[in-house]
Amino acid sequence: MSRMVKFLLVEDDDDHANLVKRNLSRARVANCVTHVPDGAEALAYLRKQGPHADAERPDVVLLDLKLPKVDGLEVLEAIRADADLRDLPVVVLTTSDAEADRERAYQHHVNSYLVKPVDFEKFRQMVNDLSLYWGVWNVLPPSAKGE
Amino acid sequence: MSRMVKFLLVEDDDDHANLVKRNLSRARVANCVTHVPDGAEALAYLRKQGPHADAERPDVVLLDLKLPKVDGLEVLEAIRADADLRDLPVVVLTTSDAEADRERAYQHHVNSYLVKPVDFEKFRQMVNDLSLYWGVWNVLPPSAKGE
Repeated sequence: MSRMVKFLLVEDDDDHANLVKRNLSRARVANCVTHVPDGAEALAYLRKQGPHADAERPDVVLLDLKLPKVDGLEVLEAIRADADLRDLPVVVLTTSDAEADRERAYQHHVNSYLVKPVDFEKFRQMVNDLSLYWGVWNVLPPSAKGE
Repeated sequence: MSRMVKFLLVEDDDDHANLVKRNLSRARVANCVTHVPDGAEALAYLRKQGPHADAERPDVVLLDLKLPKVDGLEVLEAIRADADLRDLPVVVLTTSDAEADRERAYQHHVNSYLVKPVDFEKFRQMVNDLSLYWGVWNVLPPSAKGE
């Protein structure tokens, strides 16, 4: 139960990224976060390309949708189309609860879809609960690092 | 935040089913549970066949793996191959953390994989946390009933 859960946070909004990171650091679950600011860098990180040659596979990707360069749904599609990455748990974390976004995310096998609460206390609680759920209870695929 | 989350529990072990149901009824999230004892009945329920013509689509399926008639992984594969059901959130809830089961479940796009804790208090906590995560935070696909 005491393993360290590794998140990859894909988020272009620095305020949102800092909010997620600060709340993860306060969560009751040991975790570390790598933050990348756009979809292209997320894919480079996951594929260990360029400066990310030594990147470790994350346990869970927290994926914003409205992203520069490659948008979040395209990142999700690329992950699901990649034999090495397709079983990686991806949680969308977005301000959009638009039907079209949810439909496309679920059709491309997002593991879970979360909408960022506007209220700070609810945001904190959601980040705590997501780190608990994915860090303590969910059991990762065998391809996760360290198995 | 106060919607009622509808679970379909697919579980052949009556003791485990009662434990899940009792703990869901004690959880801090409004929920209702329909329990079916094997994989064939789960698929009939989801497809509104036979006695299940009036069945409501559940929000989340809690799926055991070792099931009579049609096993859990086959149920998952059938859900993912069915145009009307493929976006339905499915959480595996099993005693098995075998690599082969986890690999096949993630390859078939399980949303999450949970292993039943042996300890009663941990079991209670896990059921509470899963109902909170899927009932309060996760936003369902538009095909979910009531949208």
